[in-house]
Amino acid sequence: MRKLLVIGIGAGNPDHMTVQAISGLNRADVLFIPDKGAKKNDLADLRREICDRFVTNPKSRRVEFDVPVRAEPTSSYRSTVDDWHETIAVLYEALIRDEIAEDGCGAFLIWGDPSLYDSALRILGRVRLRENVAFELEVIPGITAIQALAASHKTALNRIGDSILVTTGRRLTEEGLAENAGSTVVMLDGKCAFNTLADHDLIIHWGAYLGTPDEILVSGRLGDVGAEIEKVREEARRKKGWIMDTYLLRKQE
Amino acid sequence: MRKLLVIGIGAGNPDHMTVQAISGLNRADVLFIPDKGAKKNDLADLRREICDRFVTNPKSRRVEFDVPVRAEPTSSYRSTVDDWHETIAVLYEALIRDEIAEDGCGAFLIWGDPSLYDSALRILGRVRLRENVAFELEVIPGITAIQALAASHKTALNRIGDSILVTTGRRLTEEGLAENAGSTVVMLDGKCAFNTLADHDLIIHWGAYLGTPDEILVSGRLGDVGAEIEKVREEARRKKGWIMDTYLLRKQE
Repeated sequence: MRKLLVIGIGAGNPDHMTVQAISGLNRADVLFIPDKGAKKNDLADLRREICDRFVTNPKSRRVEFDVPVRAEPTSSYRSTVDDWHETIAVLYEALIRDEIAEDGCGAFLIWGDPSLYDSALRILGRVRLRENVAFELEVIPGITAIQALAASHKTALNRIGDSILVTTGRRLTEEGLAENAGSTVVMLDGKCAFNTLADHDLIIHWGAYLGTPDEILVSGRLGDVGAEIEKVREEARRKKGWIMDTYLLRKQE
Repeated sequence: MRKLLVIGIGAGNPDHMTVQAISGLNRADVLFIPDKGAKKNDLADLRREICDRFVTNPKSRRVEFDVPVRAEPTSSYRSTVDDWHETIAVLYEALIRDEIAEDGCGAFLIWGDPSLYDSALRILGRVRLRENVAFELEVIPGITAIQALAASHKTALNRIGDSILVTTGRRLTEEGLAENAGSTVVMLDGKCAFNTLADHDLIIHWGAYLGTPDEILVSGRLGDVGAEIEKVREEARRKKGWIMDTYLLRKQE
């Protein structure tokens, strides 16, 4: 049967690669690389750098592919994502069937960890339900941006005995800061949702391009640094053409 | 100035070690190893195995130390932990001052990730506040049991666009399942708190000794597998003398 590895490759620092991930990269005959031809894309470059540095298997072959673009949400966010995932499932099915030999091994390389705000496992579940191609699945964890954030700020995510809520910018805006978690980590926030919060005494630990040479860190009282983060973020986004950031919010101890 | 590395060494599989963690291990002159003389302890063995396998620096020296035992909570959990951390801070201060040269580098090896339910960073903050020894701190992230759990169950932690609450067994028992998170991850649960929940239709993904050859996985509807997990857990704990487990709870999709 075909074997498929879904490998977490860390948050942007090639040194985040685990021994298990490096071994996985080298067990695969085929490495699936999204963003076909995206020569000017930093993240695509970084992924190539990881492959160049860690792949020693001479039989290894890279297959680049275009990732379908998600439509703008029309009716609901969920149904838009649903349609988009089905389109990618059809693409993945073709890649698995056409590019991996029947007893071969392929690998998808996932930023961060495949279990956290990434769709590959969900989409591969759809491929399996379509029943056109059978495969065995193995998942290899990777360092996430959340962990890189905490490490760079040299802080624990949780307060003693307290909970941590990992959520999205969208939800933070809609629901405000949750009362049942001592710490809140926000991902996928394109709109500085922290600036919609009423409590300006919250402490924020913010980071962008975590783990890379371009890493930016800001922390402090939300009322003091909230506007600065928004400014720094917009400048960096304009300069590089993209930004990935995440942050930790909590009450002052 | 003295340099101190706090290194996440993964959830139990030596292959969880990152390139950054291996490099950190080898930058240190002194590796601080808790559980002095604990020869029959699996976790101590595993930590030694990681050092034996990855440390290539011939100047590296290991310093084993006894971890003070935490008192049973009398008044409040927080104040008991507070006293315990102060005792450890005094110990850490002595280790840093006496075992690391003034321009030297020492490392603490932390299971999982230093940012998640681990006290080393908080205790080193106390050492710094005592102002008896100065040091520069660097934190290196590691794969957590949560990520190992998700990888072994081949599932994402979050539902599409939904939040994840990371909490403790104590809090799950006291507060029940949070309504503001699509998924709940429970750590530090010695009492199978999932069996106190009213909703037997929840799906649970449970794992013990994650990432090790002794890994045990059970998943299913809570009403169907809750009692089984409790039985399997107790048998494994009795057989090995210790258990580390974690689990993911959520409503059926």
